[in-house]
Amino acid sequence: MNPDIMKERQNATFDVEKLTHILNGGAEKTKRRREIESMVMSDPDFREQDPNFLSRSERYDQAVRKSAQMILKLREYGIADPEEIYCYKKMVQGHHHEALGLHFVMFLPTLYSQCDPEQAKKWLPLAESFQAMGTYAQTEMGHGTHLRGLETTATYDPATQEFVLNSPTISSIKWWPGGLGKTSNHAIVLAQLYTLGNLHGLHAFIVPIRDMNTHEPLPGIVVGDIGPKFGFNEVDNGFLKLENVRLPRDNMLMKYAKVEPDGTYVKPPSAKLTYGTMVFIRSLIVGESARALSKSCTIAIRYSSVRHQSEIRPGEPEPQIMDYQTQQYKLFPLLATAYAFTFVGQYMTETYQRISGDINQGDFSELPELHALSAGLKAFTTWSTNSAIEVCRMSCGGHGYSRSSALPDIYVEFTPTCTYEGENTVMMLQTARYLVKSYRQAKAGQRLSGIVSYLNEDKHQRVQPQPVAARPTVVDVNDLASLVEVYKQRAAILVELAAKSIQQELQCRKSQEDAWNNSSIDLVRASDAHCHYVVVKLFTDKLGEVGDTAIHSVLSTLALLYALHGITKNSGDFLQAGLLSVPQVLQISVRIKELLSQVRLNAVALVDAFDIHDKMLNSVLGRYDGNVYENMFEWARRSPLNSTEVHESFHKYLKPLRSKL
Amino acid sequence: MNPDIMKERQNATFDVEKLTHILNGGAEKTKRRREIESMVMSDPDFREQDPNFLSRSERYDQAVRKSAQMILKLREYGIADPEEIYCYKKMVQGHHHEALGLHFVMFLPTLYSQCDPEQAKKWLPLAESFQAMGTYAQTEMGHGTHLRGLETTATYDPATQEFVLNSPTISSIKWWPGGLGKTSNHAIVLAQLYTLGNLHGLHAFIVPIRDMNTHEPLPGIVVGDIGPKFGFNEVDNGFLKLENVRLPRDNMLMKYAKVEPDGTYVKPPSAKLTYGTMVFIRSLIVGESARALSKSCTIAIRYSSVRHQSEIRPGEPEPQIMDYQTQQYKLFPLLATAYAFTFVGQYMTETYQRISGDINQGDFSELPELHALSAGLKAFTTWSTNSAIEVCRMSCGGHGYSRSSALPDIYVEFTPTCTYEGENTVMMLQTARYLVKSYRQAKAGQRLSGIVSYLNEDKHQRVQPQPVAARPTVVDVNDLASLVEVYKQRAAILVELAAKSIQQELQCRKSQEDAWNNSSIDLVRASDAHCHYVVVKLFTDKLGEVGDTAIHSVLSTLALLYALHGITKNSGDFLQAGLLSVPQVLQISVRIKELLSQVRLNAVALVDAFDIHDKMLNSVLGRYDGNVYENMFEWARRSPLNSTEVHESFHKYLKPLRSKL
Repeated sequence: MNPDIMKERQNATFDVEKLTHILNGGAEKTKRRREIESMVMSDPDFREQDPNFLSRSERYDQAVRKSAQMILKLREYGIADPEEIYCYKKMVQGHHHEALGLHFVMFLPTLYSQCDPEQAKKWLPLAESFQAMGTYAQTEMGHGTHLRGLETTATYDPATQEFVLNSPTISSIKWWPGGLGKTSNHAIVLAQLYTLGNLHGLHAFIVPIRDMNTHEPLPGIVVGDIGPKFGFNEVDNGFLKLENVRLPRDNMLMKYAKVEPDGTYVKPPSAKLTYGTMVFIRSLIVGESARALSKSCTIAIRYSSVRHQSEIRPGEPEPQIMDYQTQQYKLFPLLATAYAFTFVGQYMTETYQRISGDINQGDFSELPELHALSAGLKAFTTWSTNSAIEVCRMSCGGHGYSRSSALPDIYVEFTPTCTYEGENTVMMLQTARYLVKSYRQAKAGQRLSGIVSYLNEDKHQRVQPQPVAARPTVVDVNDLASLVEVYKQRAAILVELAAKSIQQELQCRKSQEDAWNNSSIDLVRASDAHCHYVVVKLFTDKLGEVGDTAIHSVLSTLALLYALHGITKNSGDFLQAGLLSVPQVLQISVRIKELLSQVRLNAVALVDAFDIHDKMLNSVLGRYDGNVYENMFEWARRSPLNSTEVHESFHKYLKPLRSKL
Repeated sequence: MNPDIMKERQNATFDVEKLTHILNGGAEKTKRRREIESMVMSDPDFREQDPNFLSRSERYDQAVRKSAQMILKLREYGIADPEEIYCYKKMVQGHHHEALGLHFVMFLPTLYSQCDPEQAKKWLPLAESFQAMGTYAQTEMGHGTHLRGLETTATYDPATQEFVLNSPTISSIKWWPGGLGKTSNHAIVLAQLYTLGNLHGLHAFIVPIRDMNTHEPLPGIVVGDIGPKFGFNEVDNGFLKLENVRLPRDNMLMKYAKVEPDGTYVKPPSAKLTYGTMVFIRSLIVGESARALSKSCTIAIRYSSVRHQSEIRPGEPEPQIMDYQTQQYKLFPLLATAYAFTFVGQYMTETYQRISGDINQGDFSELPELHALSAGLKAFTTWSTNSAIEVCRMSCGGHGYSRSSALPDIYVEFTPTCTYEGENTVMMLQTARYLVKSYRQAKAGQRLSGIVSYLNEDKHQRVQPQPVAARPTVVDVNDLASLVEVYKQRAAILVELAAKSIQQELQCRKSQEDAWNNSSIDLVRASDAHCHYVVVKLFTDKLGEVGDTAIHSVLSTLALLYALHGITKNSGDFLQAGLLSVPQVLQISVRIKELLSQVRLNAVALVDAFDIHDKMLNSVLGRYDGNVYENMFEWARRSPLNSTEVHESFHKYLKPLRSKL
């Protein structure tokens, strides 16, 4: 092991293993996770080439092979618990995605939830045995977020009792569904239903797209891969153009809405059936943010402890780059963020499970808040993580730019979370809608419950930077409870500001909609402040659960760093609202430097506690043993351009060039 | 042409062509640029495949072919003016880089500047005829920024009158030089010179690395490609390990320092020979930032004018996404930044040329300021642009993630500018060193000249948010001159804060070096504020040169947006320093919304004025004609995964899977 990184570990003030258990939700969970991970690692069937050395087609090929292997292995080992399956798959996939992902995440669940009994009998065995491999085709080339805008049509023909599916325009071509391009032979297609001359909105149809034996596209089906992307090379995101494709009547999923043989349309009992799933997936993404950021911090911080560069004191050996204050200032707030998001992710999962229980018992009361919170936190955590990964990458200097660092892979595979499952700005505005509604209810005298209850609080009860006559509290910038309070009040003030902006627009005779649009900068800002408050609060709450003194101390330092760093980055908000004074903001800058020194001592141990295995990390910079350079050299020598000493281009272009001059 | 984008153009309030001339430096320059660009476009020898459809090896192959072609074509057409060569090459390369780039940018210039007459007679003909193709090998695996840390050794052996070159450790392996991996047969290697038992520091050696006929690596040379990177797929960044490589004495570049046959070392007359080149390259990078940002804004803004999505008013057709205030708030400040950086780039080039003239006449007085300014502005503009490209990409929703948008390519090819030619944080600290030095000189009563002269100004002369007794000026947030003033004072205050932080550390008995390191967060912040001031000032200065009223008006709007947006993003600084009042900050938020509406009208015309040809842009989203969807479909169908209907993985894995279940 590299002696620098060894020394870092020796200096740690807490028990890394215990912190890992806290992050995993208990020692048992850590143990089981490691068992599953080592199943994958010891399995020769999962030996593979670094995807960075492969062509797109080879990467896709390798991903399909692994997907097929996983199906067999999971059955062989009897792994059936969703959490364990998730863990197994993550270890197989590394930073990348599963070729058959949509079959499991969308195709099967949609069949389970939307088939009527007859359909279930027909389709479930086909799908469960992978005779039918499917995807979910919703997005079109011209239409994403706004479902009502989708153009694909399904017109019922009572004469033959068939639906006729069409992509009437270029912009209506289905675009982006994962696994659609080459893998799937079926797709659940969302289309506008017309029957007996009437439009009934979006409905789901099971559309066979390829022959189940030959895998050739069926008549009327134009299907293919949408071409190379920033990342997601393992996945064949596809297009689908439907040209008068005729489907039997019972290929429309009929558990809720129905079309009778004569074309009569029967409405579904409720319109909000997918609400819960959306909330669930967005909550999961919060955890994905934590995960991607933990990986990135692990790489950047370990590398910063073994990389020596430049000089602080002339004549002395080059210091570890982690000793530069600027490097600490780049990385340690991100490390604190990784911890914060991990705890927020845990909270979201727990809350979802709790509320799901309530929902099953008919109690929907907490769903709107969770819906609003999951939208905003999805956006807040993915945006933060997205830029943080790049800060980590660039903090590794030139070597961060090499694919051997894994940071480019982590970035390109993560960044779509800012767009999919609800574009982030749209998500922030959804949360804002809930906040403004709650604000108005509070103004109207209603008592709010849950996280937004702060909107009930009287302005004059608010904390103040200095003791003022008749104003009670003074902010203590070293006290987390006090900081939670100022974050809360900043959120309250910015929600109020946004609500007032709408009000002013309305007073200028703008329509509701234009008033909303003309206030949307303020609305996004309010949502952001609300989410920031929630994160600071949940991190602080988590500390209450930590019994181990040493761990409590180091996590408190991180929480304080997270909260104070957030204040300096948004100091205008706090000053503008009168929540902090100028001397306090200056004091915070000084305090942050002290906290950086404290985190410095434990930084490597804090990333070790994430317990991300080298095989999963797949980064020469982030290796546990710190032996960066020899492994970078070895990696480079294996790369495809070095398979021959002389590249053919020398003989083709460079040698002939000389004679032409 | 797409009717939406046509309408945008019809609504523009100014003459696009005239603005293009301003950006190009005159109508003649526009004309010549277009001539050169059409030479490339009409040339069948430069027809090529989209690099996104090729493997790494094929991309490198295509790049070498184009490099060889360019050499022949430039001679054929007699294009010899550096600016015209630059323009020709850019058009051939698109977003990508030249395989033989380092031969032209580093190998040849180093030979020109550091060969003695004998060496020049031998090497220049070889290099100019591409018998010797070369690169510049400085960076090592373990050493980047800090040149004194380089480990490669060149030990003189008087017995044979040879140098013996070695890579004594893994970390000393040369790493990253462009063209080193496969292309070059020579490298200029920077090594620590030992002669007669003494170390004389870094010197440059011409090292043959491959046989000039067979291109095979020579004995003692271990050379290859460093493997795949985030981008730069066209370039074979390489490694070089030297194992007792013996070079004749005259392979050391001897124009300045010398080693006599007996091993006697003769010192060079001056140590600062490369100072000017460094400044020049960093100044160029400012222009590259402007260029990358202009491309990204062109794509995102044109796409935002043809993409329709969601609804503002229920029942109405989906609006252009550019009508959403949040979209305007994402993109228009970046558009303003693209203009700002273009003008800053022009200023840097002009200033460099002017100062070069002075230097040739022995006047070095302005060099330190330009050195400091080029370091800081390189960091300031590349950091801003780096995150801005990603904002542009994500503002295009899912389609931005497709390689067909070109935004992933622009990002990965641009992002290394944050690291190379001086890592950005190091650059900011270099500028800070100059600022602190100037501040101390001012405190000591010295009159400063040039851009930093504001450090002479008395605190009590500063503008104030409100009229205060004995304090003269009030800030007018609608007046650019007034805003330049507040940016200047913010810089002055932050330089003072950083200098005082160092002072305080020294008072706590820290060494100079630790005091500097412990203040480096403040120092970077001060540099950033200084650069921000310079950019606002130069943009404002530029307006004075614009005669056309309509163009003056639209550029003033952009300059105001740039300045006010920068204030809201850093409002804490301005409030903390007492430069602006809380009501003024609120007023600025309102004013920004008005400016966004004004820019909305001209947004497409403003990106059209950059006049970036579709072939250069290579983006289906950014096409001049706005016909996005049909071209995206066509592009996807050409992609390699669609060359067969059925991917072999179906037969290899998916079909067999069914029988195993």
